Amino acid sequence: MAQFTPKNPDFEKTVRQSFARQALMPFIGATLTSVRPGHVEIRLPVQEAFSQQHGIVHAGIVTTIADTAGGYAAYSLMPARKSVLSVEFKVNLLAPARGEVLIARADVIRAGRTLTICQVNVHALAGGSEKHCAVMQQTLMEVDLAEIEGS
Amino acid sequence: MAQFTPKNPDFEKTVRQSFARQALMPFIGATLTSVRPGHVEIRLPVQEAFSQQHGIVHAGIVTTIADTAGGYAAYSLMPARKSVLSVEFKVNLLAPARGEVLIARADVIRAGRTLTICQVNVHALAGGSEKHCAVMQQTLMEVDLAEIEGS
Amino acid sequence: MAQFTPKNPDFEKTVRQSFARQALMPFIGATLTSVRPGHVEIRLPVQEAFSQQHGIVHAGIVTTIADTAGGYAAYSLMPARKSVLSVEFKVNLLAPARGEVLIARADVIRAGRTLTICQVNVHALAGGSEKHCAVMQQTLMEVDLAEIEGS
Amino acid sequence: MAQFTPKNPDFEKTVRQSFARQALMPFIGATLTSVRPGHVEIRLPVQEAFSQQHGIVHAGIVTTIADTAGGYAAYSLMPARKSVLSVEFKVNLLAPARGEVLIARADVIRAGRTLTICQVNVHALAGGSEKHCAVMQQTLMEVDLAEIEGS
Repeated sequence: MAQFTPKNPDFEKTVRQSFARQALMPFIGATLTSVRPGHVEIRLPVQEAFSQQHGIVHAGIVTTIADTAGGYAAYSLMPARKSVLSVEFKVNLLAPARGEVLIARADVIRAGRTLTICQVNVHALAGGSEKHCAVMQQTLMEVDLAEIEGS
Repeated sequence: MAQFTPKNPDFEKTVRQSFARQALMPFIGATLTSVRPGHVEIRLPVQEAFSQQHGIVHAGIVTTIADTAGGYAAYSLMPARKSVLSVEFKVNLLAPARGEVLIARADVIRAGRTLTICQVNVHALAGGSEKHCAVMQQTLMEVDLAEIEGS
Repeated sequence: MAQFTPKNPDFEKTVRQSFARQALMPFIGATLTSVRPGHVEIRLPVQEAFSQQHGIVHAGIVTTIADTAGGYAAYSLMPARKSVLSVEFKVNLLAPARGEVLIARADVIRAGRTLTICQVNVHALAGGSEKHCAVMQQTLMEVDLAEIEGS
Repeated sequence: MAQFTPKNPDFEKTVRQSFARQALMPFIGATLTSVRPGHVEIRLPVQEAFSQQHGIVHAGIVTTIADTAGGYAAYSLMPARKSVLSVEFKVNLLAPARGEVLIARADVIRAGRTLTICQVNVHALAGGSEKHCAVMQQTLMEVDLAEIEGS
């Protein structure tokens, strides 16, 4: 993966503070386990409550942690005082998401002036081995916080 | 939208029973508000716990109900004793998801032998008016339940 | 579909002049058959040269006219002196593209400050009837021409 | 990338013969420059005729070689006497496609019973250096040739 130089020297603190403001992450029990320039990892212990009709983790939960990981991978390369929004993403579900923990690992593949593109891989950790269960290609946008509030 | 003739005369009952087996739907409080051949609507009262860092509903929650609605729209046209899996989806976030209730409305646009394609629109109901906040294009697959369990 | 008021009163002329600068459109024989605010139609007579290995029109050709139609639907709503770039698109191939003419019809579903989202449907006209062969969900960006040249 | 064992020992010959049946590849001048199990590379010398309105290669041409490369990467892992169809793909355009040659490199990331998922990267070769200009996430389906002809 590409090497990036963050514009915000406090990028890790900025990312962690933003993550801490998300109500949804503690609601589902997700934690931010790695923050590097252009790379973020999130882990989510699997709960029975996340199941869809076949007893596997719902694609919406898989997407939730993938989108968050990608958003913060992008955000890690943005200037301080800017914010990030997901524009769109596409997810392929590669295998049923089953196991003890889901791990989403996001990497920036292009950091442009306005838009950032990420790839995110989600693995399910079951019995000590990881299974690749989803891949996301995602577009994010650098915005001023005022734009979000006024939109 | 296209008119479809369901292969399963009990499609509504089959869809509602499957929805009832999803642990995630009651966990977030989503309900199935309409089931017609090739069309499903799901409603989700917005909770503070669904917020991302800017106080709007997380894209993962928006995706959760969109994916479920699309899955059941596809499933409504499948033979009894078959099951449905999401293959992939792409979501564009059109506007911040804010309001009292999110509404996902899914329509089958092509029901093939193995694969079904849906479009899903998500609106946020706020103060009596709806705002279009997301659109999904989704691919689903008809499977035997045994295939899911063995995969 | 939504009703839009164009910011550029000469939008049709602007779109047609831009289309005329595309080398690829005359190379494949595509023509711009309708330009309305937020809506564009392109038609492409099918040639043997467009075939993939099974004798049907290659998905790349289907995508070419869909992307162009969506780009101009977005551009029709942009201010004069701005330009448009495709950020990304997702295409589902619904049926084999066979027939005399392919028709791509694009509609803007959200025109934002920076980004515009379109849906594009491609039909194959064969023996007087149309078959829905592809659907695209696309994100476009308003840019200054200088940005493209310097990028 | 994952290592794959081809089911068809003559996979390279099978892929090259199928590529040779595509009318579109010689029409645009694309060549198949590498075929390995789960990996295909296609090269396309850039022509003036491929330009969109800003003088860069049209996204439809970029998509054409990406889709073909991904299709054959998937096909390289399929049994002899089967065929491959693109179900859907999503392309992010990362940078303007300019230069002497475009190179599409496709890798299978999941080869399932019915569906195969690929990632394809397109680089533009200009003055001896490569620029990453597009990334595709693609779903392909193994089919019997009879299914395509009858559909």
